Amino acid sequence: MIEVYTDEYFMREALKEAEIALEEGEVPVGAVIVANKKIIARAHNQTERLNDSTAHAEMMAMTSASNHLGSKYLTDCTLYVTLEPCVMCIGGSYWAQLAKIIYGASDPKRGYQRLSDEVAHPKTKVQSGLMAKESQALIDVFFEKIRQKR
Amino acid sequence: MIEVYTDEYFMREALKEAEIALEEGEVPVGAVIVANKKIIARAHNQTERLNDSTAHAEMMAMTSASNHLGSKYLTDCTLYVTLEPCVMCIGGSYWAQLAKIIYGASDPKRGYQRLSDEVAHPKTKVQSGLMAKESQALIDVFFEKIRQKR
Repeated sequence: MIEVYTDEYFMREALKEAEIALEEGEVPVGAVIVANKKIIARAHNQTERLNDSTAHAEMMAMTSASNHLGSKYLTDCTLYVTLEPCVMCIGGSYWAQLAKIIYGASDPKRGYQRLSDEVAHPKTKVQSGLMAKESQALIDVFFEKIRQKR
Repeated sequence: MIEVYTDEYFMREALKEAEIALEEGEVPVGAVIVANKKIIARAHNQTERLNDSTAHAEMMAMTSASNHLGSKYLTDCTLYVTLEPCVMCIGGSYWAQLAKIIYGASDPKRGYQRLSDEVAHPKTKVQSGLMAKESQALIDVFFEKIRQKR
């Protein structure tokens, strides 16, 4: 049997969210949260629309997943996110105790990896680089557009 | 003339929020955000009530202040919070570019200070220890209650 619900499948869904963000003039980052091979939350960056610098895709996806499950802990969930989480988002994932984070492109400047590994919860496995090219391409399109506007 | 709107005045308001949290069975942390000597946002920890591990006092106060100002940046604002911010909350303050953070009690285990100072925004001044005893006393009451329940 062919496995349909692969990591690539879910990352592609996160990429769809990032594409929506791009269309809306937001930094294109998308996220989905999966439990038992089912997407229970999806979100994209909305800092501009909501005028709220905490409205990152991961934060909103975690809040939404907790709403869905009726639990502040997301211990059986995997977060797929197109860009390496920032310090705020990895800090949020610490409290939610996510089982796994799979991210796409790296973010050497604002990502959490430049800090100690201690910032992620010890129970949270982290995997990087999945469909990183596709994720980075969206980011590049966004910043190219900004440069053209100047 | 006597200065009414001192740091102590605003921290006392943050402590009032922490007391509300305590009454509601939440970890007692409270926050207010001040611009031009006026409180524009106030919040307390609501992780239990909202079933949302990202619902820390600081995060909700920042979202609320941004709503009030219609700006995702809080560059002219001071955050008063009764406990040292965690990694998530300092990460959020980085994006909001707060002018100043004044906190009460230290949190050696979960506070951000154990990490590099780089996690705070370079424009954000941080001051610690204001009314730390009062802040810590509320935390102690909370954990004493939990111990008694066991």
